[in-house]
Amino acid sequence: MKIIIVGATGTLGKKVAHAFAEKHEVIRVGNTKGDVQVDITNEASIKAMYEKIGAFDALISTTGKGPFVPVTQLTSEAFKSGLLDKLLGQVNLVLIGQHYINKGGSFSLTSGILADHPVAAGSVLSTINGGLNSFVIASAPELENGVRINAISPNVVEDSPSYFDSFPGEIPVTMEKVVKAFEKSVLGIITGQVIKVY
Amino acid sequence: MKIIIVGATGTLGKKVAHAFAEKHEVIRVGNTKGDVQVDITNEASIKAMYEKIGAFDALISTTGKGPFVPVTQLTSEAFKSGLLDKLLGQVNLVLIGQHYINKGGSFSLTSGILADHPVAAGSVLSTINGGLNSFVIASAPELENGVRINAISPNVVEDSPSYFDSFPGEIPVTMEKVVKAFEKSVLGIITGQVIKVY
Repeated sequence: MKIIIVGATGTLGKKVAHAFAEKHEVIRVGNTKGDVQVDITNEASIKAMYEKIGAFDALISTTGKGPFVPVTQLTSEAFKSGLLDKLLGQVNLVLIGQHYINKGGSFSLTSGILADHPVAAGSVLSTINGGLNSFVIASAPELENGVRINAISPNVVEDSPSYFDSFPGEIPVTMEKVVKAFEKSVLGIITGQVIKVY
Repeated sequence: MKIIIVGATGTLGKKVAHAFAEKHEVIRVGNTKGDVQVDITNEASIKAMYEKIGAFDALISTTGKGPFVPVTQLTSEAFKSGLLDKLLGQVNLVLIGQHYINKGGSFSLTSGILADHPVAAGSVLSTINGGLNSFVIASAPELENGVRINAISPNVVEDSPSYFDSFPGEIPVTMEKVVKAFEKSVLGIITGQVIKVY
């Protein structure tokens, strides 16, 4: 299987790429590093990435960011920057990618626990993750040629200790568990599902 | 209570405004009609609205739009237009309004059933509604001075028969039921909740 991993140079993406590379052809995509580069906030850049890579069987996205700011200090501009990055960026990977993906392929996006369980200063990320989960539910029945789509929604992961204090009460999940969720999405048969890893 | 209703000239807003006007001071806000006009996609316009109205006790939003387009034909531009309208527009009513609202006031936004139950061509609205629901959950604990926030998430409403065919299997809800949900949010004590009217 030819698998594109956008965000493959990040904390989570690295582990996901390593796992899939055992049995599959993995194209590691990063913002500045990796086999191919992409700026997910730039539609032309996404198109260029797909043109360069050509037909593929699965796209995994472990990328996208949004600002952590308390609601009382939050500006429209900061909020918008998050929407256009982690939310619209991942949506565009699908909207554009659907025209390049092989029959029976799959998209696996990354949302996160904040969709349901908020933390301080996390409202932008909560909004993004909630939006992504609903996008997956709604777009799955409309994708053609047997193409599937799921969202992996992880808790804070064990490899990101700098985030532990921001997620009080949460038990960090193992990277292995998150990697398994991506395997379920890419290698399994499900579609339109939010795979919660928490 | 001084209640601002953004979208008061729309199908739903009219009924909501009528109900609250019995016992409260209602300021009807529309895009081109109403007591005051606002363009929710324009931050400066939202600020001007609040400056004009002054301190208030509750803001109800029954406004915001997004395009209905099948995923296979959806462009990034169309998707973005919805995010910046019904999603970011309503978020901005809160981000800016929190600096004008009275102590113990409330924000009541409108999301919708598509967050959980998709229909054909509805992926942009699903994403918007899912995002709004998570925004409400996440922002409620951070709002200061006892200010509350909830989302009302209605099914297709009986006063919008042109939408009935787009929501197969759904039983249109009465306007009275949706109005009651807004009363629960504005006059009750709950916060950070998604009030599902379906």
